[in-house]
Amino acid sequence: MDDIRIGIVGHGFMGHEHEKMLTKMDGIRVVGISDIDPKQLEDVQEGIKRYASNDELMHDPEVDVVLIAANNNQHYDLVVQAAKAGKDIICEKPVAMTTEELDGMLAVTKECGVKFTVHHQRRLDPDFRTMKAVFDQGSLGKVYSIKSGLYGFNGNMHDWHVYKKEGGGMLYDWGVHLLDQILWMMPGAKIQSVYADLRNVINFEVDDYFKILMRFDNGIMAEVELGTYYLTDKMHDKWFERHWMIGGNQGSAYVDGFEPEGKIVRTTHLLQNVSGQRTMTAAGPTRSFGPPAEGTIVTEPLPTVPTCHEDYFENYKKAYRGEEEFLVKVEETRRVLALMEAVRESARTGQSVAFE
Amino acid sequence: MDDIRIGIVGHGFMGHEHEKMLTKMDGIRVVGISDIDPKQLEDVQEGIKRYASNDELMHDPEVDVVLIAANNNQHYDLVVQAAKAGKDIICEKPVAMTTEELDGMLAVTKECGVKFTVHHQRRLDPDFRTMKAVFDQGSLGKVYSIKSGLYGFNGNMHDWHVYKKEGGGMLYDWGVHLLDQILWMMPGAKIQSVYADLRNVINFEVDDYFKILMRFDNGIMAEVELGTYYLTDKMHDKWFERHWMIGGNQGSAYVDGFEPEGKIVRTTHLLQNVSGQRTMTAAGPTRSFGPPAEGTIVTEPLPTVPTCHEDYFENYKKAYRGEEEFLVKVEETRRVLALMEAVRESARTGQSVAFE
Repeated sequence: MDDIRIGIVGHGFMGHEHEKMLTKMDGIRVVGISDIDPKQLEDVQEGIKRYASNDELMHDPEVDVVLIAANNNQHYDLVVQAAKAGKDIICEKPVAMTTEELDGMLAVTKECGVKFTVHHQRRLDPDFRTMKAVFDQGSLGKVYSIKSGLYGFNGNMHDWHVYKKEGGGMLYDWGVHLLDQILWMMPGAKIQSVYADLRNVINFEVDDYFKILMRFDNGIMAEVELGTYYLTDKMHDKWFERHWMIGGNQGSAYVDGFEPEGKIVRTTHLLQNVSGQRTMTAAGPTRSFGPPAEGTIVTEPLPTVPTCHEDYFENYKKAYRGEEEFLVKVEETRRVLALMEAVRESARTGQSVAFE
Repeated sequence: MDDIRIGIVGHGFMGHEHEKMLTKMDGIRVVGISDIDPKQLEDVQEGIKRYASNDELMHDPEVDVVLIAANNNQHYDLVVQAAKAGKDIICEKPVAMTTEELDGMLAVTKECGVKFTVHHQRRLDPDFRTMKAVFDQGSLGKVYSIKSGLYGFNGNMHDWHVYKKEGGGMLYDWGVHLLDQILWMMPGAKIQSVYADLRNVINFEVDDYFKILMRFDNGIMAEVELGTYYLTDKMHDKWFERHWMIGGNQGSAYVDGFEPEGKIVRTTHLLQNVSGQRTMTAAGPTRSFGPPAEGTIVTEPLPTVPTCHEDYFENYKKAYRGEEEFLVKVEETRRVLALMEAVRESARTGQSVAFE
């Protein structure tokens, strides 16, 4: 089979990441890279074209697929431009700044008959896939709580992500992943309400902290929290990385770290509800909380899920040939964008937003 | 000065705790104890009367103050009975099942001219007082987040707390403390909205898990979470005890355990927002998260706050003589009850409740 020939728009952080990964993969060829800042092209690998403009890339007949890795506020124009040039499109996340922009993209890509998907590669993150596997196994019984967290130490934000008009801020950057993971974990479940806090603790213009609660119609309350200045010295828990916790009525499971460490945790027996008797088992300041007796808490290892970001493009290659569906459907990313709009509304009004 | 002579109604867990503490304190004398179940009186200490009925206690002229430690659903009748007998009253928490009940209590105690306060002794808990001291010092800068958590391992609930009609459940038992602590920490701040999850994960009748978010008009989002079946094996973090975390724009502080361990945590420098440049500092899967460089995170010890539950009655003795105010004003407990009603409404409707 012929290689899928890709042109990359934007040679910033993600553009470099794509170049590095795709040049190692079979079945894909990076034809060329463009950037509005010529300096960014100085380190483009040998054998890859350096375009003088995005327009030149869009009209290169050697390019089958345009991979858009430019600043968020440029996605709309670039998707329209690529579609009109008849190119298939992979767009970085967030695919658009608003659902309105995305609806415009959907209309034009449909009209032009080009393939269109979004690079939500964090559906393939090991921490997420481990917890998704636990969830899918159902061994925690009826799940009531899912928490997904990510903490940083310095108000961290890079490059154009500090500028509001360029689509900066952590909600667009990481929030879109964290929310997409939750939605994709429970594809059939609808969100009844969203309650959110979104603020800039350290940064001047853009959000660098958010906490988002989503009440699902399957009975689960899901929480996503990200803080770039939310500090402890608990390095043993990989504090400044990813965290997951799922609570069910037959056990809990947790994961710490991008390379996930954690356990499934259960108890050897449940409380026998006392009927009629008035038991006296005072121990310290409370009978209900405190260290469990030796042996009460038992653990099981987490499932091991082989997964890596290259799988995104392995799927892309097959889906491009019509052999399977694209991992990321644009309708799914529209739901994430709508959720992010509800998050902003809730944070602005201070009240929950009825969502679906 | 004469001793304050106390009669205790109810010789369950808290009745025993009161007997044990008050019989060791100067200036207070435990005159007698009643319980509707005579078996509960078998272990009353020598020299303390065992009443045949609550009524006998209420009409004992030796009793100045009735300390009500009966099941929650009995508080209303007992407060009315004690007030009409002309006794001063200390009532266990939650003072009433509803704000409506409490309004009735307030009317009758006012009419009878008796002193009336509530045993919110967890205002004196070391974990809480440590974090209150950190908050009051203001060294965390502008605080944006306060989290208070408590986790258990076995759906733990005791005695009548498993019965709905007797006022059981963790919201009444511990929620009333956890919410009271937050409100008392920020006495001037109003709650704009409440969003809550409240459910019985393990227990048949009563709530044994809750998560409550409160958005305050001082810009702080406060969270209270309690789970009696929310498990990890992280015993080093005193998981099955108390947890606090406060996030501000000049540092964070955390506490684990009833005997608090924790730190104030800061960073040596904040991110320099990048202007114009496109930096490339890729490290692992993200530039923004991951272990900080050695020396980036610095800690300070938490303040030490001498506090103990006896202080509740030390204050009571002085306040009883008019030398200071009662630590717990009934109006404050009314606000907590109203908040708990908003919590139940939010949990039932699935939407936030505008509170104050």
